[in-house]
Amino acid sequence: MMTEHRTDAAHITADQQAVEDDLVATVVASFDDTPDPRLKQMMQAVVRHLHAFIREVRLTEQEWNRAIEFLTAVGNITDDKRQEFVLLSDVLGASMQTIAVNNQAHANATEATVFGPFFVADSPQIPLGGDIGGGAPGQPCWIEGTVTDTDGRPVPGAKVEVWEADEDGLYDVQYPDGRVSGRAHFFTDDNGSYRFWGLTPTPYPIPHDGPVGTMLEAVNRSPMRASHLHFMVTADNLRTLVTHIFVSGDDLLTSDSVFGVKDSLVQDFREQAPGTPTPDGRDPGDRSWSRVHFDIVLAPAGT
Amino acid sequence: MMTEHRTDAAHITADQQAVEDDLVATVVASFDDTPDPRLKQMMQAVVRHLHAFIREVRLTEQEWNRAIEFLTAVGNITDDKRQEFVLLSDVLGASMQTIAVNNQAHANATEATVFGPFFVADSPQIPLGGDIGGGAPGQPCWIEGTVTDTDGRPVPGAKVEVWEADEDGLYDVQYPDGRVSGRAHFFTDDNGSYRFWGLTPTPYPIPHDGPVGTMLEAVNRSPMRASHLHFMVTADNLRTLVTHIFVSGDDLLTSDSVFGVKDSLVQDFREQAPGTPTPDGRDPGDRSWSRVHFDIVLAPAGT
Ligand SMILES: [Fe+2]
Ligand SMILES: [Fe+2]
Repeated sequence: MMTEHRTDAAHITADQQAVEDDLVATVVASFDDTPDPRLKQMMQAVVRHLHAFIREVRLTEQEWNRAIEFLTAVGNITDDKRQEFVLLSDVLGASMQTIAVNNQAHANATEATVFGPFFVADSPQIPLGGDIGGGAPGQPCWIEGTVTDTDGRPVPGAKVEVWEADEDGLYDVQYPDGRVSGRAHFFTDDNGSYRFWGLTPTPYPIPHDGPVGTMLEAVNRSPMRASHLHFMVTADNLRTLVTHIFVSGDDLLTSDSVFGVKDSLVQDFREQAPGTPTPDGRDPGDRSWSRVHFDIVLAPAGT
Repeated sequence: MMTEHRTDAAHITADQQAVEDDLVATVVASFDDTPDPRLKQMMQAVVRHLHAFIREVRLTEQEWNRAIEFLTAVGNITDDKRQEFVLLSDVLGASMQTIAVNNQAHANATEATVFGPFFVADSPQIPLGGDIGGGAPGQPCWIEGTVTDTDGRPVPGAKVEVWEADEDGLYDVQYPDGRVSGRAHFFTDDNGSYRFWGLTPTPYPIPHDGPVGTMLEAVNRSPMRASHLHFMVTADNLRTLVTHIFVSGDDLLTSDSVFGVKDSLVQDFREQAPGTPTPDGRDPGDRSWSRVHFDIVLAPAGT
């Protein structure tokens, strides 16, 4: 119904630029009376960047319609269980940029990465050296390290929450049977050390049967995440750390669908032949296992 | 659960800027293999502007969460009858900027404005001089003018579609009773002239009982639209014009909630005392009426 007029940016007259500039100024000014100064700042910034996008690409009315349809589809699939707007933010790198902005590198502190949708509060507590698997299928993996502050002082009693997908690429909450597996929490010992059995991380796709998956396909991008294990580490007077460790050598490190990989988080998971003695004497039977060492450094709170 | 770290932009280190720049570059590059060059251009522009917004305002994780909740609410209220994403685009001026980008002023051609959500295809056809009211309540208004091209040549047989709210601020489609009123179409005569009876336009609010309305309230903005009458004019080999006429003297001209007002579209609706003879001899009884003259100039197709 609407006609299409793709305009070459080179043909934009000074009059036309003035019309477009005036509109931006008018819309920005419409937020001048916002009582909350932070909300005002954000709405005015949204307007400026949104209009800059429309003007830069000379968005056609047909493309505007398609954008509305896309957002409508994202809204329609979103419910209590499925958050397609978060997925959209993730695959556009907006989630990771928000993490970056709020977790500036502090001295030698461990870097943060995306939280992801599969955290569950109140995971089972296990003793140090315990197993988070809960029967999840996968190769056993011994994970150990210490938690210190940026001055190298051990942090005893730090709460460490860990969660990961099984070797079929699924988190426990993605199964309909209510199982709790591949997640737990524990506390560091008097030396700030920790150790536990988990699974060697394996790759999995983000949910890609919705509009975000359709978009990824249209732009020739994979929904796969690089193999990883999630950590959240909390301790008094220190900045809470939300991060992953990634598996050195994983082909997906350079194409993680949510841009979560940071070099400093890529760890060496050392493959152990069947029969290799384990650190705690546990017998994994006739299967191989792996081990990794990950030292965690927490920044001061408020940094 | 996540800690908040509002960072003063002045404190962003060069290292931190490099981290943020690198992330933008990585996300932009992830779209490099998009087969459709236009889609690639748009996605990469979306990423650049979205990240620029996040970095400029130093978006906190709590604010990111609130943004996700807002978009989720916009998605939840949207259905076949209610398009809250379009409303959001409207109140951010994005709809009007898209119109501006696609309808550059051409010589003396009549300016375009927003289409709005209340157009209905296949409106009743009326003869020239007929009444579009269909029983809608309001002050009668005689509207007349000519349709020409930018060289001043009359355009006979141009299709003119008009629609407007009644004096209660409602379009026919907003009533549950299936009425058709305040909308019609007709064709210009051999001299390119047109004339019809409608209603003097009155103000109405955009739907404001959803998340967009809540946002407008938070930023101290009114949902009211300046009084207007919609036109869509179609003719062979000429650019289709979608526009409104606005009422000179309306208080809302400077605060239209969707930024649709352009000076050239503000028209003088001349009030006529009860008993003033009408152009076609019609007798409006003992009530006042108004009249307005609106000449329409269509740009060449493809401009
Ligand atoms: Fe994950
Ligand atoms: Fe309207």
